[in-house]
Amino acid sequence: MSATLEPIPPGILSLADYEAAARQRLDEGAWAYFSAHAGDGLTRRANRAAWDRIGLVPRVLRAVREVRTDATLFGRPLPCPLLVAPMALQRLAHPDGEVGMALAAAAQGAGFVLSSQASTLLETVAAAVRRDDSGRGPLWFQLYFLSDRAATLELVQRAEAARYEALVLTVDAAVRTPRAAEQRAGFKLPAGVGMVNLPASEAASAGSLGALLARAPTWDDVAWLKARTRLPLLLKGVLHPQDAREAARLQVDGLIVSNHGGRTLDSAIATAQALPAMADAVAGALPLLVDGGVVRGTDALKALALGARAVLVGRPLIWALASAGAAGVAHGLRLLRDELAVALAQCGAARLADLDRSLLLADAPPLLGRDI
Amino acid sequence: MSATLEPIPPGILSLADYEAAARQRLDEGAWAYFSAHAGDGLTRRANRAAWDRIGLVPRVLRAVREVRTDATLFGRPLPCPLLVAPMALQRLAHPDGEVGMALAAAAQGAGFVLSSQASTLLETVAAAVRRDDSGRGPLWFQLYFLSDRAATLELVQRAEAARYEALVLTVDAAVRTPRAAEQRAGFKLPAGVGMVNLPASEAASAGSLGALLARAPTWDDVAWLKARTRLPLLLKGVLHPQDAREAARLQVDGLIVSNHGGRTLDSAIATAQALPAMADAVAGALPLLVDGGVVRGTDALKALALGARAVLVGRPLIWALASAGAAGVAHGLRLLRDELAVALAQCGAARLADLDRSLLLADAPPLLGRDI
Amino acid sequence: MSATLEPIPPGILSLADYEAAARQRLDEGAWAYFSAHAGDGLTRRANRAAWDRIGLVPRVLRAVREVRTDATLFGRPLPCPLLVAPMALQRLAHPDGEVGMALAAAAQGAGFVLSSQASTLLETVAAAVRRDDSGRGPLWFQLYFLSDRAATLELVQRAEAARYEALVLTVDAAVRTPRAAEQRAGFKLPAGVGMVNLPASEAASAGSLGALLARAPTWDDVAWLKARTRLPLLLKGVLHPQDAREAARLQVDGLIVSNHGGRTLDSAIATAQALPAMADAVAGALPLLVDGGVVRGTDALKALALGARAVLVGRPLIWALASAGAAGVAHGLRLLRDELAVALAQCGAARLADLDRSLLLADAPPLLGRDI
Amino acid sequence: MSATLEPIPPGILSLADYEAAARQRLDEGAWAYFSAHAGDGLTRRANRAAWDRIGLVPRVLRAVREVRTDATLFGRPLPCPLLVAPMALQRLAHPDGEVGMALAAAAQGAGFVLSSQASTLLETVAAAVRRDDSGRGPLWFQLYFLSDRAATLELVQRAEAARYEALVLTVDAAVRTPRAAEQRAGFKLPAGVGMVNLPASEAASAGSLGALLARAPTWDDVAWLKARTRLPLLLKGVLHPQDAREAARLQVDGLIVSNHGGRTLDSAIATAQALPAMADAVAGALPLLVDGGVVRGTDALKALALGARAVLVGRPLIWALASAGAAGVAHGLRLLRDELAVALAQCGAARLADLDRSLLLADAPPLLGRDI
Ligand SMILES: Cc1cc2nc3c(=O)[nH]c(=O)nc-3n(C[C@H](O)[C@H](O)[C@H](O)COP(=O)(O)O)c2cc1C
Ligand SMILES: Cc1cc2nc3c(=O)[nH]c(=O)nc-3n(C[C@H](O)[C@H](O)[C@H](O)COP(=O)(O)O)c2cc1C
Ligand SMILES: Cc1cc2nc3c(=O)[nH]c(=O)nc-3n(C[C@H](O)[C@H](O)[C@H](O)COP(=O)(O)O)c2cc1C
Ligand SMILES: Cc1cc2nc3c(=O)[nH]c(=O)nc-3n(C[C@H](O)[C@H](O)[C@H](O)COP(=O)(O)O)c2cc1C
Repeated sequence: MSATLEPIPPGILSLADYEAAARQRLDEGAWAYFSAHAGDGLTRRANRAAWDRIGLVPRVLRAVREVRTDATLFGRPLPCPLLVAPMALQRLAHPDGEVGMALAAAAQGAGFVLSSQASTLLETVAAAVRRDDSGRGPLWFQLYFLSDRAATLELVQRAEAARYEALVLTVDAAVRTPRAAEQRAGFKLPAGVGMVNLPASEAASAGSLGALLARAPTWDDVAWLKARTRLPLLLKGVLHPQDAREAARLQVDGLIVSNHGGRTLDSAIATAQALPAMADAVAGALPLLVDGGVVRGTDALKALALGARAVLVGRPLIWALASAGAAGVAHGLRLLRDELAVALAQCGAARLADLDRSLLLADAPPLLGRDI
Repeated sequence: MSATLEPIPPGILSLADYEAAARQRLDEGAWAYFSAHAGDGLTRRANRAAWDRIGLVPRVLRAVREVRTDATLFGRPLPCPLLVAPMALQRLAHPDGEVGMALAAAAQGAGFVLSSQASTLLETVAAAVRRDDSGRGPLWFQLYFLSDRAATLELVQRAEAARYEALVLTVDAAVRTPRAAEQRAGFKLPAGVGMVNLPASEAASAGSLGALLARAPTWDDVAWLKARTRLPLLLKGVLHPQDAREAARLQVDGLIVSNHGGRTLDSAIATAQALPAMADAVAGALPLLVDGGVVRGTDALKALALGARAVLVGRPLIWALASAGAAGVAHGLRLLRDELAVALAQCGAARLADLDRSLLLADAPPLLGRDI
Repeated sequence: MSATLEPIPPGILSLADYEAAARQRLDEGAWAYFSAHAGDGLTRRANRAAWDRIGLVPRVLRAVREVRTDATLFGRPLPCPLLVAPMALQRLAHPDGEVGMALAAAAQGAGFVLSSQASTLLETVAAAVRRDDSGRGPLWFQLYFLSDRAATLELVQRAEAARYEALVLTVDAAVRTPRAAEQRAGFKLPAGVGMVNLPASEAASAGSLGALLARAPTWDDVAWLKARTRLPLLLKGVLHPQDAREAARLQVDGLIVSNHGGRTLDSAIATAQALPAMADAVAGALPLLVDGGVVRGTDALKALALGARAVLVGRPLIWALASAGAAGVAHGLRLLRDELAVALAQCGAARLADLDRSLLLADAPPLLGRDI
Repeated sequence: MSATLEPIPPGILSLADYEAAARQRLDEGAWAYFSAHAGDGLTRRANRAAWDRIGLVPRVLRAVREVRTDATLFGRPLPCPLLVAPMALQRLAHPDGEVGMALAAAAQGAGFVLSSQASTLLETVAAAVRRDDSGRGPLWFQLYFLSDRAATLELVQRAEAARYEALVLTVDAAVRTPRAAEQRAGFKLPAGVGMVNLPASEAASAGSLGALLARAPTWDDVAWLKARTRLPLLLKGVLHPQDAREAARLQVDGLIVSNHGGRTLDSAIATAQALPAMADAVAGALPLLVDGGVVRGTDALKALALGARAVLVGRPLIWALASAGAAGVAHGLRLLRDELAVALAQCGAARLADLDRSLLLADAPPLLGRDI
C-alpha cells in the first residue's frame, strides 16, 4: 500500500462521481471485469431504479441536533451501518488493493468483508486492520464452498485464526454466468494478481472465467458449516421469503439480501423490491443486511427504514479505490456517511432506530377520490 | 428599484418560458444558486411530474361567465390564490430584488412571503408594499430559528412592527444540504448582496454555503413562538400526515405542504403526492397551502382541488425577476392567474369553492372489465 | 373544388403517414393553426397513448368470412362507424375545403360534421353532399352558442333547412385558450378564408385569435335549444360521468366524449380513459361517440369495444386534405376503414355488435401469484 | 444444404446478437420480410418488454448440481423445452433453408415445426431429420386451412405419411395484414423460392403479399380436422381464456399462446401477459406452449414458470440461419439452452417441474406500509 495518500480527483462531490473518474484510470480489461453485469443488465439497473422509486415522507420538528449513525450487530458496536461488500481481486483496481480498502473502511467506522477470492492474503488484511482498532467497523470473511469440505474448513479456520468476526457464505453464485463485457474485452488476469487465499486448483478454475464456480452448497452444507465454526454465519444472496424462513429455522445468524449486484442471475428482482417481504418473513428473528445499487445516503436510509440493519456497498468503492486508492475509499465512504447523517436529520430521525416504513412511500400516482 | 419598467423579453407566452430567458441573463454563479437542487434532483423533477400526472375531468354547461379567483385567508381577502414563495437573496437575480418582487405581486393581487434571508431590509419591503394597499395580496414573513431565542424574537418583533400579516416558520431545512451545482460553479456571494436582516454572525454562517443552517427547532419551539406572537403562525415544509395532526393539535394556524422545491431532502415525495393525505389528516381544521413545481394555471387548479387554499410559486418568479425585473414578475403572475381563470371556466368552476377531487383522476390505465 | 383528383403522395400506407406529407405542403401559419394544442400538449399526447395502452385479447375460430362495419344511429343506417370531426376553416388546408372533405367522407360511407366556423357556406356543403346520396354517412351540423339566442336560432334553422341530420352542440370551448404554436407562428387568417356562416361580428371575434369565444352555454340553454329543433341534439366535449347522467336526464340524444383533441383544457384526461366510466354512467340510455387521437383501425375498434357507437377523426383528415385534397381524404378514410375491417376479423368479430370489453386489457403487468 | 459448416460470426455471445449480424447479410427485401411487424409494432415490442418486466425471485441452497432441461410431451421425451416456430420461406434467409434449420434443431434436442408455407418439400425435411433420430426433439407440421377441405386433407395426409408427429393449426391469421416494411422495401419473392408444399393456386395467392390468406377456419373446422387425423392437434395463436376453455371442451391436444410475433393484429397483448390467465383457464387440461420475443434463457424460464410446457422461438433463429446457416442455428439454440440451464440452477430448480409462479414477481413498486 502506497506510503503517501493520493489526491482526490477534482469534482468528486458524491460517491457516484467516482465512476467516471475510474473509467478514465482503469484499463479496458479491469474496467470490464469490475463493471460487468449478467445478461442485459436488467437487474443492475433495477437495483438503482428501485431505490429512486421509493419516496421519503420526512417527519419534522423532532430533536435531531445530535444525529447518530451507530448500531450494534452480533453484540458488537457498529460505528456506522455501512460495510464494504466482498469483491474479488481488488489489486486489479489499485496497488492498495484489499489492504487499502480495509484500512479506509476502518478509518470511517465502516465494516469490511474480505472476499475469499481476494488478491491479498487474508492474514495480511487482518493484521493491517487490527493495527489500529479504535472505532473501526467489523471485519468479516466471505466464503464460497470449495471442491472439498476439508479445504473449505481449512479456509474457515484460517479466517478464525486471523480473528475475522463473522463468516459470510455466498449462496447466489452456484454457477458462474459468462458476462459479455468481460468476454468482449478479452479480459485475462494480469501476472501478479490472483486469488491468493485459495488452493491453486480452486483459484485456477475460479480464475478461468468460463469455468463453473466451485460446488453449489445446499442447506445441509450450511448446517454442517454452522456446526463447525464459532463465528456468526451470514448467508449472502437470499431474495426469497421462503428461504429467509428456512434460514431462521436453521438459526443462521444473519442474511444479506443481495442479487450480487446483477452479476449472476439477470432479471432477479431489485434488492429494494425484495427487502420488505424479506423483513416480514424473518420478523426480527435474525438481522437483515442488503446491497445493490446503493450510492446515496438516502438509499442507505431507505434500506434501513425497510428493515435492514446495515448496508453493503460494492462497485462504487471499487471506483473510489481505482481513482485514489485508500484515500479515495475513505473519502467516498465519508461522503456517503455524511449524506446519511444529513438525511437522518432531515427525516427527523436522531437514531437509526427511529427509522421505519412510515417514512416511505412507493412511487405511485396520488390516491384521489375515484367515485366520480 | 429601477424607475422605468423593463421590457418583457420576446416570446414569453407562459410563466415557464422565463427560465430560458433567465439562463441567458444570469451569471453562472447566480444561475447555479437559484436553480440548484439537492442530490440527484429526484424531488425537483417529481414535483413537476406529479402535477402533470393528475388528469382533469372537467364539468360542462355550468354558469361560468364570471369566473372569480378570490378567497379569504385568516379573515383577510385574497384577491388571487397565489403567493411568492420565500426565497433568499433576490437582489442576486436583479437589482429590483425583494422590493420589485413584492410590488409586482401586490400589483397582481398575489401574496408575498419575505425570506428571513432576504437581501433587503424587511422594513423597506413592507414600506414599499404598503404605499399602495388596494387589492394587494397578503404580506408574510418567513422565519428560521436563529442561534438564540432572543435574536429570533427580536426578528419576529421587527416583522410585527413592520406590519407583516403572518409568520411562516420553515421546518424542513434543519440541516443545509450541500448542492452540487453551487459547488461546481464555485458560487460566492458578490459584494453588496447579503442577508441584511440577520445578525452578522447568523448571516455569515448562513452565507458560508457549507455550514449548517441555524438551530433545528422542535415542536416545543413552535409552542414557545406561538405564545409570543399575535400573528398567525404557519409551518412550511410539512409532508407527513402525522405532523399535520400534531400541528392541528398545537393550534398552528396553517401549513405549507412543501419539500423546499427539492433543495433539501432529495427523494422526498412530490408535494402533489403528499397533498391528498395531508388534506385528509387535517380535515379542514387548519388551512393548507402548497408549493413546488407550479408553473401552469392547471397546476394551481389541481392543488386547489386537492384541498390547498392557496399556492406558492418559487423559482419561476426568480426567472421572471432576473429576465425583466418587477415587470417580468408582474407579467409572469398575470399569465399564471389568467391561465387559472381560464382553467376554472373550462372545468365549470366559477369560484374556487367549486373545486374538489371529483374533477381529478390520477393517471392510470382505463378501468376495464377484467373478468375475461 | 378541383376538377381532377389529385395524386396520393407516395409512401402513404396508413392514415398517420399523411401528417409528414402535410407538414411539407402547408405554410407555417396554417400548420401551426391545425396542429396547435393547448398548454404543454399533455392531453394531446395522452389521447394517443391511451389507445396504445389498451391491449387486444382477440377471439379466434369465429365465423368472420364476411365482416361488416355498418351500424345504425338515430334510426338511420351508418355504412361505417367513422365521422369527420367538426373542424373550422378547412379551406386553409386546401382549396377543396369543406366540400372536398364532405364528398370524400360520403364516398367512403363515413359521416361528416360541418363546423359552424366552416369556411364554406353550410348550404353549399349540403347541396354537394346530397347530389349523390347513396351509401353516404350522416351529415351533421356543429354549433357554438352565439352572442344572442336569435342569431343562434337562425343558424340552427338554416342547418335544418339545408337538411343537416343532427345538431352537435360543442360544450368544451367556453373560453378560447391561446395556443403557443399559433402565437409563435404569428398566424393570421389569409384573405378570402373566413367563417362565412357566422354573423360578421361573431366571425370577427372568433377569428381574432386572442378573443374569447362566444357565450358559454348552460344546461338551461341546452333545454332551450332542444325545445326549438326537431333534429337529434348531441353534446360534444363531455368527459365527466355526472354530466353524462345530467344529459341523459335532459333527454339529450347523444354525447361525443371529447377533449377537443387537446386544444382547449390541457391535462384533461384522454378520451380513451374517460370512455369506460362514461359508458357505465349512461348505461345505454343514449349513444356515445368519441374522438381524439384515433389513427388506426385498432384505435377505432377499441373505442367501439369500450362502448362508443362511432368514432370521429380530426387532424389526421386535415393532413390528408392538405396533402391531396378530397382524394387524400377518401384514401385516408379508406385505409382506416380497411384496417378496422381487418382488425374486426382478427378479433373474431363479424359485426360491430360483437365487440365488447372482454376483448380488451388495460396495460398492466401480468397478474401473478404474489403470495411468495 | 452446404457441405461444410459455416463459421460463426465473431462476437456472438447470446442469441440476440445474431440480429445485427443478419441485418448485414440479408438483402433489403428479405430483411423486410423477416423482420416486418403489423401496424406500429406495439405487440412486437410488448412481447419483449413483457418478459423483461417479470422479475425472478430465486431460491437458493437447493440441490442443483445436475440440472436437467428435459420434459415429455404427448407421451414423447423432449430433450429440451425449445422448438423452432413455424416460419415460411426459410430458403430466403439462407440456402440451408428448412433442412438446415431442422437439422440444427435436432442436433440440439430442440423441436422443429415446419410451416405449410415452407420453401422445401415437407418430405425432404422429414427424411433429413429422421436420418439421425437419437436425442432429437419433435417434428411437427404447421397448417393453414386451404381453399377447400380436400386439398387441406391431402396436405395433412402427406404430413402423416412423412411421419410428422403433431399438427399445428394456426388460427390467428384469418386475414393477412399488409406490413409497411415489406411494402416500403417493395419485397417480391425471388425466383426459385416458393411455397412448394401448397397447390399452385394457394401458393400464388399466399405469395402475392397483398392477398387474403386462405379460408378463415371455425371451431367446426377444428372438429372436422380432429376427426380426420390420428396426430395430436395443437391450435396456434390463442390468447383468450374463453377460447382456451372451448379448445379444452373440444379435446384439442395443445395450445400455442401466440400473437404471431406481432405480425398479424397489432396491439394484441404480449404473450407473457396472456399466459397466466390462459394457464388458469385450462387448469392443466391440455398443455400450453408459448412464443413471441423469447431470446434469453430467463425468458424461457419465466414462460415455463408461468405454466408453459415448452417455448417456440421465431425470428432470432432466422437471424442465426441467415448469419451462419445450420451452424448458426445450432449455435444459437445451444446458447439459449445453456442460458436456460444456468438460470435453472440459479433459481434453485434442478428440473423444469420445479418451476412455478412463486419464483416470479411482476414489476411493481415495493409494497410498503401505506397507513402513514
Ligand atoms: C468486481 C466484483 C467482484 C465481486 N466478487 C464477489 C465475491 O467474491 N464474493 C461475493 O460474495 N460477492 C462478490 N461480488 C458482489 C458484491 O459483494 C455485491 O453483492 C455487489 O457488488 C453489490 O452491488 P453494488 O456493486 O451495486 O453495490 C462482487 C462484485 C463485484 C462488482
Ligand atoms: C433560491 C431559493 C431560495 C430559497 N430560500 C428559501 C428561504 O429562504 N426560506 C424558505 O422557507 N424557503 C426558501 N426556498 C424554498 C421556496 O420557498 C419554495 O419552497 C420552493 O422554491 C418551491 O418550489 P418551486 O421553486 O418549484 O416553485 C428557496 C428556494 C429557492 C429556489
Ligand atoms: C383545426 C381544428 C379545428 C377545430 N374546430 C372545431 C370546431 O370548430 N368545433 C368543434 O366542435 N371542434 C373543433 N375541433 C375539434 C375536433 O372536432 C375534434 O374534437 C378533435 O380534433 C379530435 O381530435 P383529433 O384531431 O386528435 O382526431 C377542431 C380541431 C382542430 C384540429
Ligand atoms: C418470417 C416469419 C414467417 C412466419 N410464418 C409463419 C407461418 O407460416 N405459420 C405460422 O403459424 N406462423 C408463422 N410465423 C409466426 C411464428 O411462428 C411465431 O409465432 C413468431 O415468429 C414468434 O415470435 P418471435 O419471432 O418473436 O420469436 C412467422 C413468423 C415470421 C417472423
